[in-house]
Amino acid sequence: MGQERIIHAALLGAGTVGSGVYKLVKDLEEEIISKTGARLVVDKILVRDTTKAREGIPSELLIDRWDEILNDPQIEIVIEVMGGIRPALTWLEEALRAGKQVVTANKDLLAEYGEHLFDAAEAGKCDLHFEAAVAGAIPIIRPLRQSLVASELTEVMGIVNGTTNYILTRMTEDGMGYEEALALATKLGYAESDPTADVEGYDAGRKVAIMASIAFNSNVTFSQVYTEGITHITAEDIRYAKEFGYVIKLIGMTRLTEGGVEVKVHPMLLPEQHPLSTVRDSFNAVFIHGEACDDAMFMGRGAGQLPTASAVMGDVIDVMRNILHHSCGKIGYGCYRNLPVKSAEDTVSRFFLRIQVTDKPGALANIAGILGNNDVSIAQVVQKRSHDGVAELVIITDPVREKHFNDALSILKGMSVLKEVSGVIRVYGN
Amino acid sequence: MGQERIIHAALLGAGTVGSGVYKLVKDLEEEIISKTGARLVVDKILVRDTTKAREGIPSELLIDRWDEILNDPQIEIVIEVMGGIRPALTWLEEALRAGKQVVTANKDLLAEYGEHLFDAAEAGKCDLHFEAAVAGAIPIIRPLRQSLVASELTEVMGIVNGTTNYILTRMTEDGMGYEEALALATKLGYAESDPTADVEGYDAGRKVAIMASIAFNSNVTFSQVYTEGITHITAEDIRYAKEFGYVIKLIGMTRLTEGGVEVKVHPMLLPEQHPLSTVRDSFNAVFIHGEACDDAMFMGRGAGQLPTASAVMGDVIDVMRNILHHSCGKIGYGCYRNLPVKSAEDTVSRFFLRIQVTDKPGALANIAGILGNNDVSIAQVVQKRSHDGVAELVIITDPVREKHFNDALSILKGMSVLKEVSGVIRVYGN
Repeated sequence: MGQERIIHAALLGAGTVGSGVYKLVKDLEEEIISKTGARLVVDKILVRDTTKAREGIPSELLIDRWDEILNDPQIEIVIEVMGGIRPALTWLEEALRAGKQVVTANKDLLAEYGEHLFDAAEAGKCDLHFEAAVAGAIPIIRPLRQSLVASELTEVMGIVNGTTNYILTRMTEDGMGYEEALALATKLGYAESDPTADVEGYDAGRKVAIMASIAFNSNVTFSQVYTEGITHITAEDIRYAKEFGYVIKLIGMTRLTEGGVEVKVHPMLLPEQHPLSTVRDSFNAVFIHGEACDDAMFMGRGAGQLPTASAVMGDVIDVMRNILHHSCGKIGYGCYRNLPVKSAEDTVSRFFLRIQVTDKPGALANIAGILGNNDVSIAQVVQKRSHDGVAELVIITDPVREKHFNDALSILKGMSVLKEVSGVIRVYGN
Repeated sequence: MGQERIIHAALLGAGTVGSGVYKLVKDLEEEIISKTGARLVVDKILVRDTTKAREGIPSELLIDRWDEILNDPQIEIVIEVMGGIRPALTWLEEALRAGKQVVTANKDLLAEYGEHLFDAAEAGKCDLHFEAAVAGAIPIIRPLRQSLVASELTEVMGIVNGTTNYILTRMTEDGMGYEEALALATKLGYAESDPTADVEGYDAGRKVAIMASIAFNSNVTFSQVYTEGITHITAEDIRYAKEFGYVIKLIGMTRLTEGGVEVKVHPMLLPEQHPLSTVRDSFNAVFIHGEACDDAMFMGRGAGQLPTASAVMGDVIDVMRNILHHSCGKIGYGCYRNLPVKSAEDTVSRFFLRIQVTDKPGALANIAGILGNNDVSIAQVVQKRSHDGVAELVIITDPVREKHFNDALSILKGMSVLKEVSGVIRVYGN
């Protein structure tokens, strides 16, 4: 028997996900040997404060200087689960250029500096894996880069934020208002004390930027993503949506169209039969459409310690196999197309519009006229009984260029018959 | 600029899937170069009858002798889409041992001779990819072998036969009987003229054998899978299931338990909220549960020319990358555990039991007594009004060892009060 092959790794960060990764490294020790032929050892764990005790992590592994990892020739894999743009960007670029393989769960970094990292990976002929950065435990990056690579994808849309899906589920199923549902999500640990990144769609926007880049082989950054959150969604919107046969979800979507790539995050009315409509609570799911593969959907846990750690470790095991077969850097970022990203105004959507209007003869005709003059055609309309002389109109439009819809809305807002715009939400479908 | 790298491949079979693969090879010609750095050329297509014209396929590529491929040193990839056990088994073994990479969509072959093929792949240090063999365009083999490899999977269950899912969907949504739904499926091309392999669960059984082997790293063959089809499912069963909040699906499931691996295909009552319950028509889906990843589901097209061909081509592109990086054979079959496969009798299930009994005092007590004596405890029971002195009893049991349930059923069948056993279907849940 020859000497056992050991692959040494360093972990950056020992928070929730970091502890989960370390736990799986220990739990799966023998499995990893069976699956790869080598033993995985985490030698060093980089943290800000080495004096702080961390459950399950031997304190002698803790260090606080990056150069001890960078300059350690034994360390072949750097596992980054500390988050944030700096210093992670610098460190990972240095690691890759030094020929170390990188596994990261850092969506902020990839969504803004993906191209930089991939340049560094290419320079160092290294693996850069990041399955955990999008939709946690759901395999989505690897299917996009490998399994579905022969399918000319045209649309990727997903529920990629568990916090907002939990809130919308409570509003839909239990009739809660937004504030009440948010409070419950916070209490249960689904929402952070500052929920901005989740409820404003920024978190989903980062994930959709990454998915767009991989799916369409063209670099898309977070700053190019139109984002709109769920804070304006009301229990009434949800009730009306239901009346029309729809469910409201926060959707991150990207489409490949003639004029370029569309990338948007916003609430959306989905038909009740759409596969994404059945994704409840804090589950995530990604729905794709491709020329050859047709429709497909992947659902699972988008966050949580062990689900995220399992995605990280799936990547680490893959990197180990590549190290042992001298095949790191095999699959690049692949952003060989330079497609323009369309502004939201140039994309086409259907809209759900809920407005309060003075209940007098001709009001509807007036409004319909303004919509029509701006190329907004009405697919469905419901007028509800009026209270105190104000009637509620709920309109679902046909597909319209968003600019035209916005123009029409501006004009409506200037009309004396219009008392309030209560809800404007996009609607799925053509 | 150096000389363009060309990778040569041969196609075995030019039927529906074969033509689809050839179409994608042509359609994706430039994409493949961008994605891999090499050009893919199909030089030879092996068919039984070279004189038959095949749409979209140049007749000069057609050959009818395997040795022309085996002995052609230029050919690095063999793409097998002809189906059947022989001669495919011999040819693929020869190809692998000769150092040619193999991509196959042949589930019959893998479900029975997977181990032989993997031995040959290991001997030749070759890739053996087969994403298309299970659930068509849905990435499931690669996620199981890579993304979820760190997750200690405990359960894989799927709707992996589109024909039967289409039939059951029509029965559920349109109230059709089995024969009527089968006739419609045949008319629409969802069912073959001899539907046996689909409706008896053999097709699903092959797929579940493959998934079990990969998920649990222990070889499982089709002959070890308990299979039960949908031919006995009636419109009444579906109506009662609905009353209890269930949907009936043909489920292929495999579980890792203390006593070994369970592998079964049978109709099953699933709770309406279960993700698999929402998978309609001819769609397929695979639901998995793992220690770390928790629940996940993959849904998509399980069959069809282009979906299947796109899965084949995803594998081919992966093999090309491996060839270019000299890393073929990186991920083996990995069946390093030798777990026993449990007989169906030793597995534990809940049952839905629909029986017709003589409507006289004490009949229910009598039946409940026999069930109880055999360890079968009743979770729910509904007795329907009787006609002509015969009452219908619908019972849902708690989990019970299948042997005990079968024993109880044998005894019930011998009782004079029991007029008919109208339905016996397993029920999801613990």
